[in-house]
Amino acid sequence: MPAFPLPPGSTIGILGGGQLGRMLALAAARLGFDTAIYDAKPRTPAGRVSALEVTGAWDDRAALERFAAACDVVTLEFENVPVGAVEILTSLGAEVAPGARALAVAQDRVEEKTFLNGHGCPTVEFEPVDDLDGLRRALDRLGAPALLKTRREGYDGKGQVWVRDAAEADAGWTAVGRRPAILEARAVFVRELSVIAARGRDGAVVSYPLGENRHEAGVLRVTRAPAIVSDHTRTAAEAIARKVLEGLDYVGVVGVELFELEGGRLLVNEIAPRVHNTGHWTQDGCLCHQFEQAVRAVAGWPLGPATAVAEVEMTNLLGPEVERWRELATDPSIRLHLYNKGDARPGRKMAHANRVLRTLP
Amino acid sequence: MPAFPLPPGSTIGILGGGQLGRMLALAAARLGFDTAIYDAKPRTPAGRVSALEVTGAWDDRAALERFAAACDVVTLEFENVPVGAVEILTSLGAEVAPGARALAVAQDRVEEKTFLNGHGCPTVEFEPVDDLDGLRRALDRLGAPALLKTRREGYDGKGQVWVRDAAEADAGWTAVGRRPAILEARAVFVRELSVIAARGRDGAVVSYPLGENRHEAGVLRVTRAPAIVSDHTRTAAEAIARKVLEGLDYVGVVGVELFELEGGRLLVNEIAPRVHNTGHWTQDGCLCHQFEQAVRAVAGWPLGPATAVAEVEMTNLLGPEVERWRELATDPSIRLHLYNKGDARPGRKMAHANRVLRTLP
Repeated sequence: MPAFPLPPGSTIGILGGGQLGRMLALAAARLGFDTAIYDAKPRTPAGRVSALEVTGAWDDRAALERFAAACDVVTLEFENVPVGAVEILTSLGAEVAPGARALAVAQDRVEEKTFLNGHGCPTVEFEPVDDLDGLRRALDRLGAPALLKTRREGYDGKGQVWVRDAAEADAGWTAVGRRPAILEARAVFVRELSVIAARGRDGAVVSYPLGENRHEAGVLRVTRAPAIVSDHTRTAAEAIARKVLEGLDYVGVVGVELFELEGGRLLVNEIAPRVHNTGHWTQDGCLCHQFEQAVRAVAGWPLGPATAVAEVEMTNLLGPEVERWRELATDPSIRLHLYNKGDARPGRKMAHANRVLRTLP
Repeated sequence: MPAFPLPPGSTIGILGGGQLGRMLALAAARLGFDTAIYDAKPRTPAGRVSALEVTGAWDDRAALERFAAACDVVTLEFENVPVGAVEILTSLGAEVAPGARALAVAQDRVEEKTFLNGHGCPTVEFEPVDDLDGLRRALDRLGAPALLKTRREGYDGKGQVWVRDAAEADAGWTAVGRRPAILEARAVFVRELSVIAARGRDGAVVSYPLGENRHEAGVLRVTRAPAIVSDHTRTAAEAIARKVLEGLDYVGVVGVELFELEGGRLLVNEIAPRVHNTGHWTQDGCLCHQFEQAVRAVAGWPLGPATAVAEVEMTNLLGPEVERWRELATDPSIRLHLYNKGDARPGRKMAHANRVLRTLP
C-alpha cells in the first residue's frame, strides 16, 4: 500500500487508453504526476500524452506485471475491465481504485439494480432473464413495452431492444443474442439527469451540480449544467450518489444516470464506475473538474471544490461531426476538447464542445 | 509549407522540454494534437506528456532532422534556442514560429532595445558596452546607478549587476564576465506590469488584460490580473504589443514586460518570444489561456478570446516551496499547476498556484 497522499512525481496507472483516459492523464499531468496507460492497442489517445504505455490483453499476466511495477496507484477509464485483470493487479500489490467490487456491480445489470435497491436507491422494476420462457414470464409481470438488455456489456444503446408486446419475445430474445439478460419496466420519465460524485480515501464525498442530458439513439448528445432542479431533487440525487459511493466503499469518481419522473421522483438508470460523459461540462464549469477530482481521489489528496463557476452546455461531436472544429474554433464562448482519435467512423465519440453560457458569481 | 489551419491529429513540435513546453503540450493535447519535444536532455517535463521526444544538442543535425520529419509545425518554449538550430530546421522545410528574426532580436539586449525604439516602443536609455572604457563612457552619459547586463543570455536576474558609481566600473565589468554587455539607465518605476499578446497567421492580434507583477531577487513571485490600470495605460500597452508583433511579423504568443512610471508612462523592459510566466494566470482566468492561444496561433487556427472571466493571483513556488502543494491542495480557491521536475533545488521554478479571487461577469 503506497503512502497517501501520493506526492507529485508519482505514477497514476490508467486501465484503458480512450478519451476518458486521455483527459484523466492531462489532469494528472497538471498536478505533476506521470501516467501509465494499459490498453490492448498501442498508441492510444491516452498513451500519446503519457510517459508509459503498456500494450497487452486483459489476461496478459506479464504485461500486467510490467504495468503494476510502474504504477503507484491504478484507476480505470473503462467499466468493462475484466474483474480478473483487477484481481491480478491487486495480487501483484497494486492499489486499484475503484476496485473489483465496484466493477463487478457495474458490469452486470442485475447485480447493479439489486445493489441499488438494497441500498435504498430506487430503479425501474426488473427481472433477470435466462431463457425465452423467463422472458415471457418477465413480460407477464412487468408488462409491455419493456426494455430487454444483455446483463453484461453494451453501452451507448448497444445490446438492448424494446419488446413492445408478448409476440415480440422471440425476436427480442434473438436480438440480444440469446444471452443472459435483464428485462426492465418502462420508465415514464420527464427528463434525464445525472449526478457526478466523488469519494476520497478519507471517506469524504462531494457531488457536482446535476446535469440535464439529452440522448439520441442511445448516445449522449447534450448535457446542460447546472440543471435547474428543486432543492428536493438535488438533495435526493446527492443522497443517491452518497449511498452508491459508501455502499461500494468507493474511491474515485462515479457517474449516476437518473430518470426524473412526473412529480420529481428519481430512479437510477445506471451507474458508471469512472469519470462520465455527462460530467465533461465540469471542465469549463467548475474550478476542480471531474478528471482532476478522480486523480485527487485515487492519489489520496483532499477532494477539490465541486461548485459551479459557470453554466455550460456540453455537446458531443460524433463521427464526422468532428469536422465542425473549424467553425467551433471561431466561437469565443466555446471550449473545444478533441480526442485525437484517428478514424471518425459514424457515431464514434470524437470530441466535445463546452459552450460557456455565463459565469456564476 | 503545411496547409493551415492544421487539423487535429497533426503534430506540434516544441523546442525545449521545460514547464512551458509541458503546458504547451497539454494545451495542444486538448485540441487533439500530438506533440514532439526537442531537448538536450531525455525525459523532460514536456516529453513525459508528449507522443515523441527527440534528444539532441542544438547543433545535432541528425536529431534535428528526425524532429523536423515528425512535426507539422514547430514552436519554442525557450528564447535562447540558437538561431542556427532554427535555420537548420527551416532549411529542412520545417515551419518554425516564432521564427529566427524574433529570436535574434530577443536574444540580444542591444538588438532588442534598438528594435523597440525603432518601432516606437520606449525603453530606458542604454548604451552597448564592449570593453571597460566603453563602460566608463556609458556611465558618463547615462549616470549612475545603472544596470549592467550581458548582451546575450541571462534570465531571472542572472548575468546582471548594478553599477552604483564610476568607481565600480571595473568590478561590474568583471561581474558580467567581461563579455559584450549593455548598460541600462535606471528606471524609476511605480510598478511592473506585463502584457501577453498573440498574433495569428492571418495577422489578427489579441492582447490579454495586463498583469501586475512582483519580482524578488530578479525572479517573478506574484502576478495579479487583470491589473487595475487606466484606459490610457491599457491602450498604450496594447499598442506596444501590437507594434512588437507586427514589427517582427510574429506568429505566436509574446510576453512584454513593462515599467509603469509616475504619471502612467510605460517603458518596455524586455520581450520574451514565447508564453510567459506572467501569463500563467490566464490558465484559470480566461476562456482561452496563453498556452492554447500559442497553439492556435502556430497551428493557423483563429485566435481565441483573451478576455478575463476571473480575477487571479498567480504565485510561483520556487525550489522546496513546492512542498506547499499539501496545504494548497486543501484550499478550494487554488488551482495548482505542478511541473513534475525532479530536483527542487533552491530558486528553481517547480510549480505555480493560481488563486481565483472572484469570477467576472
